[in-house]
Amino acid sequence: MQKIAGGVTAAKGFYATGIAAGIKKSGKDMAMVYSEAACRVAGTFTTNLVKAAPVKWDQKIVKGLPVTEQEPEKAGSRDGADGMCAGNDQTAHVVVVNSGVANACTGAEGYGYCRDTAARAAELFGIRENQVLVASTGVIGQQVPIAKICAGIETMKPLLSESEEGGTLAAEAIMTTDTVKKEVAVQLELGGKTVTIGGMCKGSGMIHPNMCTMLSFITTDANISQPLLQKALSASVPDTYNMVSVDGDTSTNDTCLVLANGLAGNLEITEENADYAAFFEALNEVNTCLAKKMAADGEGATAMFEVKVIGAESKAQAVTISKSVVSSSLVKAMIYGHDANCGRILCAMGYSGAQFDPEKVDVWFESAVGKLKIIENGVPTDYSEELATKILSESAVTAIADIKMGNAEATAWGCDLTYDYIKINADYRS
Amino acid sequence: MQKIAGGVTAAKGFYATGIAAGIKKSGKDMAMVYSEAACRVAGTFTTNLVKAAPVKWDQKIVKGLPVTEQEPEKAGSRDGADGMCAGNDQTAHVVVVNSGVANACTGAEGYGYCRDTAARAAELFGIRENQVLVASTGVIGQQVPIAKICAGIETMKPLLSESEEGGTLAAEAIMTTDTVKKEVAVQLELGGKTVTIGGMCKGSGMIHPNMCTMLSFITTDANISQPLLQKALSASVPDTYNMVSVDGDTSTNDTCLVLANGLAGNLEITEENADYAAFFEALNEVNTCLAKKMAADGEGATAMFEVKVIGAESKAQAVTISKSVVSSSLVKAMIYGHDANCGRILCAMGYSGAQFDPEKVDVWFESAVGKLKIIENGVPTDYSEELATKILSESAVTAIADIKMGNAEATAWGCDLTYDYIKINADYRS
Repeated sequence: MQKIAGGVTAAKGFYATGIAAGIKKSGKDMAMVYSEAACRVAGTFTTNLVKAAPVKWDQKIVKGLPVTEQEPEKAGSRDGADGMCAGNDQTAHVVVVNSGVANACTGAEGYGYCRDTAARAAELFGIRENQVLVASTGVIGQQVPIAKICAGIETMKPLLSESEEGGTLAAEAIMTTDTVKKEVAVQLELGGKTVTIGGMCKGSGMIHPNMCTMLSFITTDANISQPLLQKALSASVPDTYNMVSVDGDTSTNDTCLVLANGLAGNLEITEENADYAAFFEALNEVNTCLAKKMAADGEGATAMFEVKVIGAESKAQAVTISKSVVSSSLVKAMIYGHDANCGRILCAMGYSGAQFDPEKVDVWFESAVGKLKIIENGVPTDYSEELATKILSESAVTAIADIKMGNAEATAWGCDLTYDYIKINADYRS
Repeated sequence: MQKIAGGVTAAKGFYATGIAAGIKKSGKDMAMVYSEAACRVAGTFTTNLVKAAPVKWDQKIVKGLPVTEQEPEKAGSRDGADGMCAGNDQTAHVVVVNSGVANACTGAEGYGYCRDTAARAAELFGIRENQVLVASTGVIGQQVPIAKICAGIETMKPLLSESEEGGTLAAEAIMTTDTVKKEVAVQLELGGKTVTIGGMCKGSGMIHPNMCTMLSFITTDANISQPLLQKALSASVPDTYNMVSVDGDTSTNDTCLVLANGLAGNLEITEENADYAAFFEALNEVNTCLAKKMAADGEGATAMFEVKVIGAESKAQAVTISKSVVSSSLVKAMIYGHDANCGRILCAMGYSGAQFDPEKVDVWFESAVGKLKIIENGVPTDYSEELATKILSESAVTAIADIKMGNAEATAWGCDLTYDYIKINADYRS
């Protein structure tokens, strides 16, 4: 496996673009990803009880359910957060994304706009409504300007491009408070064929994914059955997007979609063989990379903050502790202040809910300039404050906690908490 | 029951003072509360696995266990978070509090300093070590300057005063990032005798109490058995301190102590009769008042933020939802921005973990200047943004959510998230 340039257009047969459709006051706000070849599709979605209309729409498509009924599943159901069901023959060709308005808390009217969006794209591309995936991100509680969206679809169709630039335009158009576009692509060999996986995501605030991230779109030309595509995605998400927290707020719109059009021509992956393992590894790399990009671009962030818990009894324990530390407002403010106020790390571990012996914990800070043990057996070491400050002043900082109970570990990603986070979120709508 | 002036010295026979002992760079940093008459004592403590040394010390006293062993209970145990055990004959006379250093993550050495503190006070007052309660708040991971603390105890003894001023000095000395002292007192009649309950607390950051608040000290001259004193406290804490969240960080030092010296002369309360009910109501009022004062003085806060969930199926459901909303960084930043970005309220309700139907929820904002319905049946109403901004610009703001499932309700208290929270916590140690 190797990293290559590009994003959602890196894999064979995928076209993309992004435009300013007038939904936001300024800048690009609509993106489209298209494959002429039918794609198998897998997805994971928010577990928030309050699900945006596009999440409900896409869930039905991923599961192969009819999309026409407005509220077919029980309102407020957490069921079917991902598409991990029996394989289905459902395929998709297009993803239409808008930023600016989230189409969440918009009732039946909002769901109707998803259908209107899909109907317009279906008509233009000569496909079925249920082959159009829809995603939105932005302000909650406002209806989307459907006329602008339908006009945007028409504008985008002739602009679709297989080039790297097409993918970049799309990656830029899905940004809200993001400050940088987030793309990645990798290639691997499967049975002598070159398979490519590319992706883009957005996410900066309201980021505390639970089953998936804000919005992430992965395209691949791999030939893989839908159940295994979903299996690979569902297995990767808990260790990647779900380990990111910017502010503890699990969004109503979290969506991760993978489209696979099979154009690489590899022998179809239909079982968990070596090809599946290689595909999973590559997909997981794409997801890890995108997840870290989101953490680093957390709203207002000046530093990416990584928390590794090692020596755990179980993976679940390591996950609980690492997420508690990476989510702590006090720890995050400390990272911003480059201040090794190490007790806050132990404190956040202690209220995580996981069981461990605080008096056996060792903690290190690490960054590009060095590594320093700051707590040994639960008590601060006689470390150099000067070196600690130097380590904490880098743009990527890691805290490592060894709880000395076993061999399991987990890594969580977040960012520091800064004045700009407040600024962005106190004035978000203005 | 009526509110009266004063705090911990309001009840008969309680003396207090506060001084600058040189633990902090400047300002008062030691407080003492004393009763010549032996006090029954009840307490609730942090459920953080990482417990400060004074928490371990006080837990033993409240439970009537020997204090001499340094680490008698299993390290990392969550057991016995409160003193809700069989009644015991344990009494206490003095509480010694320091601010500046939390004596948390300090190992056996830190516990030893609790004992040294108690030994010095015991010697001066002619009482036993285990009649001295100890509490600390401040930086985690530093040892307390024990010589200064012992000297401070000597300095404070002759300054102890039954006056209102004595109580105020103590309330000021326990402050860290608090901007105002927090005191309250109430009086009630029990069998023709006037009973007084007074209290003080501190808490501004690292406030997300779980079983208790940062530091809260209540004194009363009520005559009540230890089991019923503990029962009343344990019943009140979940609805008062535990409903406050400033930043989601459950402290290592959370402690609430009630001392009852019996000097009011009322017939001893030994069963859950009308006197117990009246006492409970008064204690609960003191705790509610102190809890709200903490929320209003959250680090960097410009507004107190109250969240009421009504129409719930159960109390537990209402608690879960209200705490999720009051803790949301995005909701808190929105309050700071006076911006009725109402979707964030529904979003935080949705990820709380409680089950409800988002499409039946109504939400109002309310403050001194008015009340406005902003969401009806899960969708924003056509409300006046101007009026919403006016309501959200007050120094105390309430969000009310009706989930239309039953008659249970809960109220949580917090504050807005502001630039100053970051400033305070990025630079806390400097």
